[in-house]
Amino acid sequence: MDSATPPPARWRRDAARTRARILAAAQQAFAERGYGQAGIRAIAALAGVNSAMLLRYFGSKAGLFEAALIDAIPQFEGLDLAHDGFGARLTAQYLAGSLDLRAQAMIALSSSDPEARMIAARVMEEHGIKPLADWLGPPNARTRAVRMTMLSTAFMLYTRQVPLMPPDAAVDSDTAAWLARSLQAIIDER
Amino acid sequence: MDSATPPPARWRRDAARTRARILAAAQQAFAERGYGQAGIRAIAALAGVNSAMLLRYFGSKAGLFEAALIDAIPQFEGLDLAHDGFGARLTAQYLAGSLDLRAQAMIALSSSDPEARMIAARVMEEHGIKPLADWLGPPNARTRAVRMTMLSTAFMLYTRQVPLMPPDAAVDSDTAAWLARSLQAIIDER
Repeated sequence: MDSATPPPARWRRDAARTRARILAAAQQAFAERGYGQAGIRAIAALAGVNSAMLLRYFGSKAGLFEAALIDAIPQFEGLDLAHDGFGARLTAQYLAGSLDLRAQAMIALSSSDPEARMIAARVMEEHGIKPLADWLGPPNARTRAVRMTMLSTAFMLYTRQVPLMPPDAAVDSDTAAWLARSLQAIIDER
Repeated sequence: MDSATPPPARWRRDAARTRARILAAAQQAFAERGYGQAGIRAIAALAGVNSAMLLRYFGSKAGLFEAALIDAIPQFEGLDLAHDGFGARLTAQYLAGSLDLRAQAMIALSSSDPEARMIAARVMEEHGIKPLADWLGPPNARTRAVRMTMLSTAFMLYTRQVPLMPPDAAVDSDTAAWLARSLQAIIDER
């Protein structure tokens, strides 16, 4: 049969699909139950593979968590990256609700596990803080990147993940304007 | 036997101790495992009572979560509450590491449960935002209270709960100075 000897290109395509399916299942499980409570077996079942197959792809639960977290970090695709006016554009993107919050949920729900915390800190550093610091440039690029990350996280946390406020348009628009202004002040700091 | 008819004062004292023991057990369980994963039975066992006794005190798991969260909110005892210089004093208290982070862990780890989220939002509003807004005074007291809460949460989240940064004294002190300045700017806003 032809399918018994598939061409290498098809192997690679199938492997990429399997990998993507496992990552999606892991993101769902870690974002809903946290690192400690989400098991390899349940994630494999959700992805339609067995545990041995999952571990061939990702090595360990820690390796899977790291890959799933990196894959879940929002990429800001289509956002104009000019420094000028970036605070307002980023705030608008947050308000549009189109950003994926699974990375934040994965981090928050896994923060009680020491191994997951170390992985989250490393991923945030390499895939969040470092690229943002490179984009900001001197002076104090890393410090300013940390502050922008803090502000963004707090805003998303209170508007989406654990909404503080009873719907209150005045508070929302005032808070959004403050976020845009505070982000821009950090970007423009010289 | 004398202990078969204890005086009312002793009953009340015993009841207060039992209640405090259940609250401490609930705070530990909810802060380590989140609302969905922490069971009434396990919390009762941790407190050395049975489930029926726990439910006589708190009515339901939701009632227990609400009481435990209110009890876990830091009270800022001993902090000089004058508006002048409060941003720096609050930041110093955060940096001293003496603040209890169980309320934040309870909220973060329980954010995937709709019932726990509603309770957390109500508790934050009544026991966090409202008293802070009353202290700030007009204009836009509630909006400013929300912004101060966002800043404080983000700072605690990244310095204590999910430390972002490899130990880096320059980043830490710069970020702390920015927090103190940003809080004070909100307090002084007119």
